[in-house]
Amino acid sequence: MRLTVAQLAERIGAELVGDGSGQISAVGTVESAGENDVTFVIAPKRNYVHLKNLTDVRHIAGLEQSRAGAVIVARRIEGLAKPQLIVKDVNAALIEALNVFGPALKAAAEGIDPTAKVAADARIAKGVAVGAGVVIDDRVEIGENSVISSGCKIGENSKVGRNCRLDSNVVVYHNCTIGNNVVIQANSTIGSTGFGYSFIDGAHRLIPHNGGVSIEDFVEIGANCCIDRAKFGNTIIGAGTKIDNLVQIAHNVVIGKGCLIASLVGISGSCKLGDGVVLAGQVGLADNIEIGAGTIVGAQSGVNHNIAAGQRVLGSPAIEGKEALQVFVLTKRLPKLVEQLKQLSKRIEGLEKAKD
Amino acid sequence: MRLTVAQLAERIGAELVGDGSGQISAVGTVESAGENDVTFVIAPKRNYVHLKNLTDVRHIAGLEQSRAGAVIVARRIEGLAKPQLIVKDVNAALIEALNVFGPALKAAAEGIDPTAKVAADARIAKGVAVGAGVVIDDRVEIGENSVISSGCKIGENSKVGRNCRLDSNVVVYHNCTIGNNVVIQANSTIGSTGFGYSFIDGAHRLIPHNGGVSIEDFVEIGANCCIDRAKFGNTIIGAGTKIDNLVQIAHNVVIGKGCLIASLVGISGSCKLGDGVVLAGQVGLADNIEIGAGTIVGAQSGVNHNIAAGQRVLGSPAIEGKEALQVFVLTKRLPKLVEQLKQLSKRIEGLEKAKD
Amino acid sequence: MRLTVAQLAERIGAELVGDGSGQISAVGTVESAGENDVTFVIAPKRNYVHLKNLTDVRHIAGLEQSRAGAVIVARRIEGLAKPQLIVKDVNAALIEALNVFGPALKAAAEGIDPTAKVAADARIAKGVAVGAGVVIDDRVEIGENSVISSGCKIGENSKVGRNCRLDSNVVVYHNCTIGNNVVIQANSTIGSTGFGYSFIDGAHRLIPHNGGVSIEDFVEIGANCCIDRAKFGNTIIGAGTKIDNLVQIAHNVVIGKGCLIASLVGISGSCKLGDGVVLAGQVGLADNIEIGAGTIVGAQSGVNHNIAAGQRVLGSPAIEGKEALQVFVLTKRLPKLVEQLKQLSKRIEGLEKAKD
Repeated sequence: MRLTVAQLAERIGAELVGDGSGQISAVGTVESAGENDVTFVIAPKRNYVHLKNLTDVRHIAGLEQSRAGAVIVARRIEGLAKPQLIVKDVNAALIEALNVFGPALKAAAEGIDPTAKVAADARIAKGVAVGAGVVIDDRVEIGENSVISSGCKIGENSKVGRNCRLDSNVVVYHNCTIGNNVVIQANSTIGSTGFGYSFIDGAHRLIPHNGGVSIEDFVEIGANCCIDRAKFGNTIIGAGTKIDNLVQIAHNVVIGKGCLIASLVGISGSCKLGDGVVLAGQVGLADNIEIGAGTIVGAQSGVNHNIAAGQRVLGSPAIEGKEALQVFVLTKRLPKLVEQLKQLSKRIEGLEKAKD
Repeated sequence: MRLTVAQLAERIGAELVGDGSGQISAVGTVESAGENDVTFVIAPKRNYVHLKNLTDVRHIAGLEQSRAGAVIVARRIEGLAKPQLIVKDVNAALIEALNVFGPALKAAAEGIDPTAKVAADARIAKGVAVGAGVVIDDRVEIGENSVISSGCKIGENSKVGRNCRLDSNVVVYHNCTIGNNVVIQANSTIGSTGFGYSFIDGAHRLIPHNGGVSIEDFVEIGANCCIDRAKFGNTIIGAGTKIDNLVQIAHNVVIGKGCLIASLVGISGSCKLGDGVVLAGQVGLADNIEIGAGTIVGAQSGVNHNIAAGQRVLGSPAIEGKEALQVFVLTKRLPKLVEQLKQLSKRIEGLEKAKD
Repeated sequence: MRLTVAQLAERIGAELVGDGSGQISAVGTVESAGENDVTFVIAPKRNYVHLKNLTDVRHIAGLEQSRAGAVIVARRIEGLAKPQLIVKDVNAALIEALNVFGPALKAAAEGIDPTAKVAADARIAKGVAVGAGVVIDDRVEIGENSVISSGCKIGENSKVGRNCRLDSNVVVYHNCTIGNNVVIQANSTIGSTGFGYSFIDGAHRLIPHNGGVSIEDFVEIGANCCIDRAKFGNTIIGAGTKIDNLVQIAHNVVIGKGCLIASLVGISGSCKLGDGVVLAGQVGLADNIEIGAGTIVGAQSGVNHNIAAGQRVLGSPAIEGKEALQVFVLTKRLPKLVEQLKQLSKRIEGLEKAKD
C-alpha cells in the first residue's frame, strides 16, 4: 500500500500543512522512519506503574533530524520543514495509519480443514475458518466469521461468538462461553481446573470444578495465559478487558469491564476486580481480594487486602502509592538513619556524662 | 442428575435434619444457590500465605437468606428453617456432592485416533484413548485407561502409567517417567532441557541434560507449566504433589510428597523440597536451596538460604513469618520513625544548648 | 556407549593419572556416580544472583567416598585413590563427556510428514524434518537441516535458518526471522501481538503491530516463552542469548548478544539490553528501560530506571547490589532500631527532667 501524504491525510481525517505530494508506505518512529514513512508525536503520559506508553517526549526532540516523509501531530509545530498531518487524537490516527500500512496477510481459509475433527452436532456458523488438526467436541457452537487456528481444541458444550480469533494451539475446555470479537493468542488455556484441594485422610483431594468460564465481548487475551474454570458458576472476564501474556487467572475470579492486566500477573481464587482496574506486570493478588473500579496496582505489588475504587497502590504487601514511594526512599536511607541513631546516642552519652 | 435431599443425604453419608423431599440438582455457594441447589458451610481456616480456601465465615452469615434447598454442615445449626445434611467432614462431603452433580461429559474415545502417529514399538495398554494429532515416539509405554488428548507429543522411551490424563497439547520429552493417576493440564511441557550453560571461549555453551523427569503417582500439574529434565538422574515430583498453572521447575529439582506449589512459582536448579511443603503464588527459590518438610513459604517470597522443617517464612529475601510481618509494619512506619529521630535530635540540641 | 577410562581421556583431551582400564558408560555427580560413571569437580563460583552453577565445593568433600570410576579435575588431587582425568577446562570437558554418553535418540525423520500442511510457495531446504500436524504458511523459508516438530505453526513470510530446532507446538507468527542454530522449546510463542492499547472513546483499542521479531544465531529459548512482535521494526534477540522457560519479552525489546534471561522474567516494551546482561529469575523491567552491557540483575528485582554497564543491582525497586544487601540486613533489624529509638527517648526524658 502506497499513498501520497495528501491521500493519507484524507484517509485519517487530518488537516494537511505543507506539501502533500510525497509517497508514504509505512509508519515509523521518529528515529527509524525513512522518507517514505509517516511518523508521529504523542505527548507523554507519565504514570508510576510503568505501563507501556506508545511513545514519549523524546520523540519531539528528534523530529527535526528525522528523515520521515510526514508527521502526525496534535498541534502544528512552527518552523518544521516537513509535512504535518494535524489530528485531534494522534493515538486514533496512528491506529488508522498502522491499519492502512499493515502487512497484507492472507485471510484464514473459510471452511473446515479436512484434518480437523468436528463433532457431528457442533454448530459452525458461516464464514468460520477451522484450521488443521483442530478438535471441536460435541455441541460446541462457533459464531460467524470466527477463526479457530491450527491445533486448537474446543471442549464439549463450549460456545465461541462471532468474529473471534483463537490462534494456534489454544485449548478451551468444556462448558466455557466466549463472547463476540474476542482474541485469544497462541498456546493459551481457557477452562483448566483450578487449584482447589481439601486435605482429607492425609492427602490433597481435588475439589471438582463444576463451573465454567465466561469471557465477554471484545476481550483480548495474550499468549500462554491460563484462565481456570469455576468451582460454582463462572470465572468471568468482563467486556473489553485486555490481558497480556503469561497471566494466571484462578477459579471464580470476576474481572470487570475494560481492565488491563499486564504480563505474569497472578490473580488468586475468587478475587473481584471492578471496571477499569489496571494491574501492572508481575502483580499478585491473594485469594478473595476485591479491587475497586479504576484502581491501579503498580508492578510486582502483592495485594493482601481489599482496595477501594480509584486508588493507586504499590509494594509487597501493597500500600498507598505515594506512601510506598516514600517508604522506598527511606528504606534506601536506612544505613544513614542507623548512623544518625548512633550519633544521637553519643550526644546523649555526652550529656549524661556532663550531668554526672 | 437429580436427587431428593434424602437421597443425597444417603449418597454422601449425611444425617438428615428436616424435610428430605426437596429436589437437588447442583451445588452452589450460599449466595448463588437456588432452591434446587445444595449449599455448604465450612469453618474458615486462616493462614497468612493466602492459599485458596474453599469458603469462609461469610457464608454462615448469609445462610438464613440463602435460597438453597439444603445445606451441608458439620454441626446442626439451631433454628435454621432449611434441611441440613450433617457430616463429619464437610470438605469430603462437598467433593462427593460435586461429583454427583458434575457435568455429564462424554468419556474420551478408547483407541487410537486415525490421525495420531504412534510408533510401531510403542506399547499402548487396553482402555487407552489417544486423541487426534498425537505423536507417540519409539518405545513409549502408556498404561491402562490413560487418556492422551489431542496434540500431545510423547518422546522416545517415556512412560505414562495407568489412569493418567494428559490434556491437549501437553509435550513430554524423551526418557521421562510418569506414574499412575497423574493429571497434566493443557499446554504443559515436561522434560524440556534446563537452563544450564558454561561460559567457554566467549560463548554460553549448553550443558547436555542426559537425565530425565520422574513424576510419581497422584501428582497433578496445571496448565502451561514447565518441568525441566535433569542433567544427571531425574528431576523428581513426589507422589501426591499438586502444582498450579504457569509453574517453573528447573533441572534436578527434587520435590517431596504431598507438596502444594501455587501459580507462577519458580524453583531453580537442584532445589530439594521435603514432604508437604507449601509454596504460595509467585515464590522464587534460588538454586540448590533445601526446604524442610511442612514448611510454608508466603506469596512472592524469595528464598536464598535453606529453611528447616515446619517453618513459615515470608518476604524477599524470606525471613521467619512473624518477624517478616513485624518488619512490614515497621517499614510502613519509617516516615514516622524519621520524624521521631528529628524530634529527638532537636531535644538533644536543646539540652546541649542548655548545658553550654 | 562404553569407553575405557583411557579412551575417555583421549576423547576429552585429558591427561590420565592412574589406571585407565576401567569401563565408563555415563556421567554422574560425586554423590550419585557408580563404578561405571565418570564424575567431575568444578571450583565453585559464587554469585549473589543465584544463577545455576553446575556444581559446587561440596562435591570435593565427598570425592573420597564417591564410587565413581574416574574423576575429571582441573588440578591433580594428591592422595586420591581413583583415576583422574586432568583437563584445562572442566566445564568444557564435562560437556564433551555428557555428549559422548548422551542418550541415543533417533534423528528426526527428514522430509515432510504427510499430515503436515505446507504452503505451495514455502521453501523447505534439504535435510529439513517437518513433523506431524505442522502448518507452514505462504512464503515461509526453512533452512537446511532444521527440525520443525509436531504441532508447530509457522506464519506467513517467516524465515527459519539452518540447523534450527523448533520443538512441538511452538507457534511462530507471520513476518518473523529466526537465524541459524536456534533452539525453541515446546509450547513457546514467537511474534504474538504485544500489549499496546490506546484509550479512545471509552475503550482500549489495540495499536496494530506492523513489525516482527528477529531472533539471531545461536539463541536458545526455553519452553512456554512469549516474544511479542514489534509495533515498528523488530523485537530483537541478539546472537547467543539464552532464555529460560516462561519468559515474557514484550514488543520492540532489543536484547544484546550473549545475555542470560532466567525463568519468569518479564521485560516490558521497548527495553534495551546491552551484551552479556544477566537477568535472574522473576526479574521485571519497566518499559523503555536500558540496561548496560554485562550488568547483572538479581532475582525478583524490579528495575524502573536505566542501569549503566557492568553493574550489579538488586531489589524492587532495584538499587546497587551491595547497598541492597545492606538495606535488607537493616530492614530486618528494624524492630531493634525502634527499640533503640525508644531507649534514646527515655534517656533524653531523663536528662530533661534532671535539667528542670
